[in-house]
Amino acid sequence: MRLAFFGDVVGKSGRAAVIDNLPDVKFDLGLDFVVVNGENAAGGFGITEKIANDIFDAGADCITLGNHSWDQREMLTYIEREPRLIRPYNYPQGLEIPGRGAHLYTLPDGRRIYVIQIHGRVFMDSLDDPFQGVLRALQEAPLGVVADAIIVEVHAEASSEKACLAHLIDGQASLVVGAHTHTPSADDQIYPGGTAYMTDAGMCGDYDSVIGMKKEIIIQRQTTRLPSPRMEPADGEGTMCGVFVETDDATGLATRIDPIRIGGRLKETFPKL
Amino acid sequence: MRLAFFGDVVGKSGRAAVIDNLPDVKFDLGLDFVVVNGENAAGGFGITEKIANDIFDAGADCITLGNHSWDQREMLTYIEREPRLIRPYNYPQGLEIPGRGAHLYTLPDGRRIYVIQIHGRVFMDSLDDPFQGVLRALQEAPLGVVADAIIVEVHAEASSEKACLAHLIDGQASLVVGAHTHTPSADDQIYPGGTAYMTDAGMCGDYDSVIGMKKEIIIQRQTTRLPSPRMEPADGEGTMCGVFVETDDATGLATRIDPIRIGGRLKETFPKL
Amino acid sequence: MRLAFFGDVVGKSGRAAVIDNLPDVKFDLGLDFVVVNGENAAGGFGITEKIANDIFDAGADCITLGNHSWDQREMLTYIEREPRLIRPYNYPQGLEIPGRGAHLYTLPDGRRIYVIQIHGRVFMDSLDDPFQGVLRALQEAPLGVVADAIIVEVHAEASSEKACLAHLIDGQASLVVGAHTHTPSADDQIYPGGTAYMTDAGMCGDYDSVIGMKKEIIIQRQTTRLPSPRMEPADGEGTMCGVFVETDDATGLATRIDPIRIGGRLKETFPKL
Amino acid sequence: MRLAFFGDVVGKSGRAAVIDNLPDVKFDLGLDFVVVNGENAAGGFGITEKIANDIFDAGADCITLGNHSWDQREMLTYIEREPRLIRPYNYPQGLEIPGRGAHLYTLPDGRRIYVIQIHGRVFMDSLDDPFQGVLRALQEAPLGVVADAIIVEVHAEASSEKACLAHLIDGQASLVVGAHTHTPSADDQIYPGGTAYMTDAGMCGDYDSVIGMKKEIIIQRQTTRLPSPRMEPADGEGTMCGVFVETDDATGLATRIDPIRIGGRLKETFPKL
Ligand SMILES: [Fe+2]
Ligand SMILES: [Fe+2]
Ligand SMILES: [Fe+2]
Ligand SMILES: [Fe+2]
Ligand SMILES: [Fe+2]
Ligand SMILES: [Fe+2]
Ligand SMILES: [Fe+2]
Ligand SMILES: [Fe+2]
Repeated sequence: MRLAFFGDVVGKSGRAAVIDNLPDVKFDLGLDFVVVNGENAAGGFGITEKIANDIFDAGADCITLGNHSWDQREMLTYIEREPRLIRPYNYPQGLEIPGRGAHLYTLPDGRRIYVIQIHGRVFMDSLDDPFQGVLRALQEAPLGVVADAIIVEVHAEASSEKACLAHLIDGQASLVVGAHTHTPSADDQIYPGGTAYMTDAGMCGDYDSVIGMKKEIIIQRQTTRLPSPRMEPADGEGTMCGVFVETDDATGLATRIDPIRIGGRLKETFPKL
Repeated sequence: MRLAFFGDVVGKSGRAAVIDNLPDVKFDLGLDFVVVNGENAAGGFGITEKIANDIFDAGADCITLGNHSWDQREMLTYIEREPRLIRPYNYPQGLEIPGRGAHLYTLPDGRRIYVIQIHGRVFMDSLDDPFQGVLRALQEAPLGVVADAIIVEVHAEASSEKACLAHLIDGQASLVVGAHTHTPSADDQIYPGGTAYMTDAGMCGDYDSVIGMKKEIIIQRQTTRLPSPRMEPADGEGTMCGVFVETDDATGLATRIDPIRIGGRLKETFPKL
Repeated sequence: MRLAFFGDVVGKSGRAAVIDNLPDVKFDLGLDFVVVNGENAAGGFGITEKIANDIFDAGADCITLGNHSWDQREMLTYIEREPRLIRPYNYPQGLEIPGRGAHLYTLPDGRRIYVIQIHGRVFMDSLDDPFQGVLRALQEAPLGVVADAIIVEVHAEASSEKACLAHLIDGQASLVVGAHTHTPSADDQIYPGGTAYMTDAGMCGDYDSVIGMKKEIIIQRQTTRLPSPRMEPADGEGTMCGVFVETDDATGLATRIDPIRIGGRLKETFPKL
Repeated sequence: MRLAFFGDVVGKSGRAAVIDNLPDVKFDLGLDFVVVNGENAAGGFGITEKIANDIFDAGADCITLGNHSWDQREMLTYIEREPRLIRPYNYPQGLEIPGRGAHLYTLPDGRRIYVIQIHGRVFMDSLDDPFQGVLRALQEAPLGVVADAIIVEVHAEASSEKACLAHLIDGQASLVVGAHTHTPSADDQIYPGGTAYMTDAGMCGDYDSVIGMKKEIIIQRQTTRLPSPRMEPADGEGTMCGVFVETDDATGLATRIDPIRIGGRLKETFPKL
């Protein structure tokens, strides 16, 4: 199967990067399933139904959220009726949390793709144990048994936490990919057990910025330690950043992983098929 | 001028990656000056005089340290007699701190290269304000006035802090490059003011690991939250990770930036001259 | 029932404060059950079997641990054969963790006291969700049904997390008392639901110190940001710090709460019966 | 001299506690100078000119701020024309920061009181080094030379950082008192060098709450990890919490320190003269 994951879409520049490029990318790579992290799509803070629909229309099959899931309050209800939205899985067990943290999607040809979002707890507001969380989620739809492919997004700050989680489930997922730092990593590889890994997919947004936001505002705030004008997304041309994975349909494990970066300030890279 | 910076050398695998590859890389790229971060070279924790000499012998002109500067206590005295070692600049002002946080090196042809290491304060044990620190350091040897090239290492965890600092001094340094996360970023670019930037150079070490350390030990510790055996570096073949920058000798600003990754598990990339 | 809890015993000064005073205190107050936090009893780092026995011999019926539970490695086995030791309850569920996080003790007269230790996750290495954890622990031995009295230690840094947890279970425990900051709070009170609360019991140790450790060493480390000699406990006369609670045997709820501070530098305070 | 410091005033309950009690307290104790922390006086977030004036009218001679200094944006200008307001001292040096971090006040009889607010950097958004900061501030008006009394507020989370700073300047200030945790400590004492110390003065506010805010809202947020209604101050009867210090006019050092707690849910305590 051919899968792609694109990192945190930040503001209008990020949305344009995805909407302008995703249809062609999906066609050129023959993608079966596309996941986009949308937690910063609405002015940097959360996402709205309207924006989500624009991203779905461009070809996303699933939009993940993160620590910014609920910045736009409409999400608390919208997510209940939109199964293509995924929020972090490891909310406290036993509580009624809106939406879902993992979902099994079925392709027209019957193949099934399981998407899980796990939220880190190092240097972040903590949810439940990400390690026990991902193991529990995987039991619901094991790779090669229930799911033909599994994409796990680790929404986390620390590279050590992401790599640790990926090794823990190496062989049980097709792809473990990080998001949240808004910085693409150059460490895409297939781990020994067959799981493709990349510490962070990077953001979709303007890279002449501080993690997608206007640099002048953040520089002022960081250097003076005083309140600054409200942060807003940088509005230069965005780069669409993500990762492509091909899996073996027999095992669900990865056979290749390649970064994708299109447009904007970063050097372009695209899988050669 | 042609410069290169290589990220945190982790243990024996990292040392071998640097020592085996650096001589050829230096020759092939015609490098004028090479900086290597060595804070994890000795079993993952600090560096020793012997190991530093091995890395100098392989072609490093300067070794930077970081939050692990003093893990090997001999460093507190060794650093005093070795001007090629750089520790974080932003220790409390006015105190007698061993070693130096910035230094101006002179090439045989008289050109001068200024190296600064700045320590972040987000998600880390804090030193002094990194922003005021780097501005103060730059005043001591301004680019194009005193220094022909300036390399600033931001030893920091948060990508936002690194990018913010780089934008702050965009135009005043040849290169701002991050270290400490042990994860190479794929966002190398030249900022509008002419400063080359890359969020993290990545580590030199075994990438079948958790940030260079044996994965089994860290998985055990992270999943059980119990004490584990002492962490030790992973010992598979290492990747040498870093960045190449070419500067305009008239201005000291960057004219190109390219990642370097050689050996081990990551995909190789090398500047085409 | 008459209960007392004493906070983190730090080093020899702390041990002496407890061992010298506890027998008399237990007699004078007619205490039915005494809990002592012992996580810093052995030179500031953990506890040993020998030291635990000294504290039991002085009158402790239960010793709690905390984030320093395993600093002395013998604890991993000793705790398995000593039911009077309690470590944090909220380790990852489903794993084999040595010892117990909650235990029901039976007095000679048949009354039962349930002790739970919950570990915070704000500003600390995180274990599992403390809120779901304490609720789960309480279900195992509900107050007034299984347990005649319940003592919950919140081993946590942030006062907000401690108060939040206490309000959450107000009416379901006799006492919620914090430990870990090594600073006694002056906010002992009975919450509206009948649970006695105190943000921190304070340490048993020398208060001419930095949280029980020699001040000179910590000042040197904090001001220079350089490595210092190994921390060691301050060795002036210690203060025994804790809290006394009386419960209604019919409900298990608190009828009074009073601080106890004896010896050393802090002003003495003792419940007047 | 007779001095008092009262901790973070939280919302209407906190304001009422101060305004109703301060006039009598000032008279009964014969206070020469009163400092009140006002950073949470306006609905929990910052303070306004109107509220500050109410607190000044009740008898405060100085109002300190903290990490919430600028929550109400009018403060950025109001502070410029009101010398009785003190914000953290350790903002980046060399920048134009509104207001002042230390100030020397002169009593009608000519005696001078120097007030400094230092902001911590452990578990908080970091300002500059608090240790070098306080030493620099003290040089501007040394005790016994320029100032007849010196009050240092350490606005910080960690008890270790507060005690370390107090020991560092023991003998150079009349009082070092913490604020920010909203929890009164019971460790008031005079350090060996003559400086009175108390880890935290505690808040002025309703103690049937989570650090002064409505408990139901915080419990909901903490247990579900979902957004909750906006936090607001609890509105039960507040306790006025603070500390009384008497100094030796010859040296400026402390001769006694006593807690003050009046009204609301906490046990009352008042210095006996
Ligand atoms: Fe995020
Ligand atoms: Fe994001
Ligand atoms: Fe580091
Ligand atoms: Fe490192
Ligand atoms: Fe602790
Ligand atoms: Fe402790
Ligand atoms: Fe505060
Ligand atoms: Fe406050």
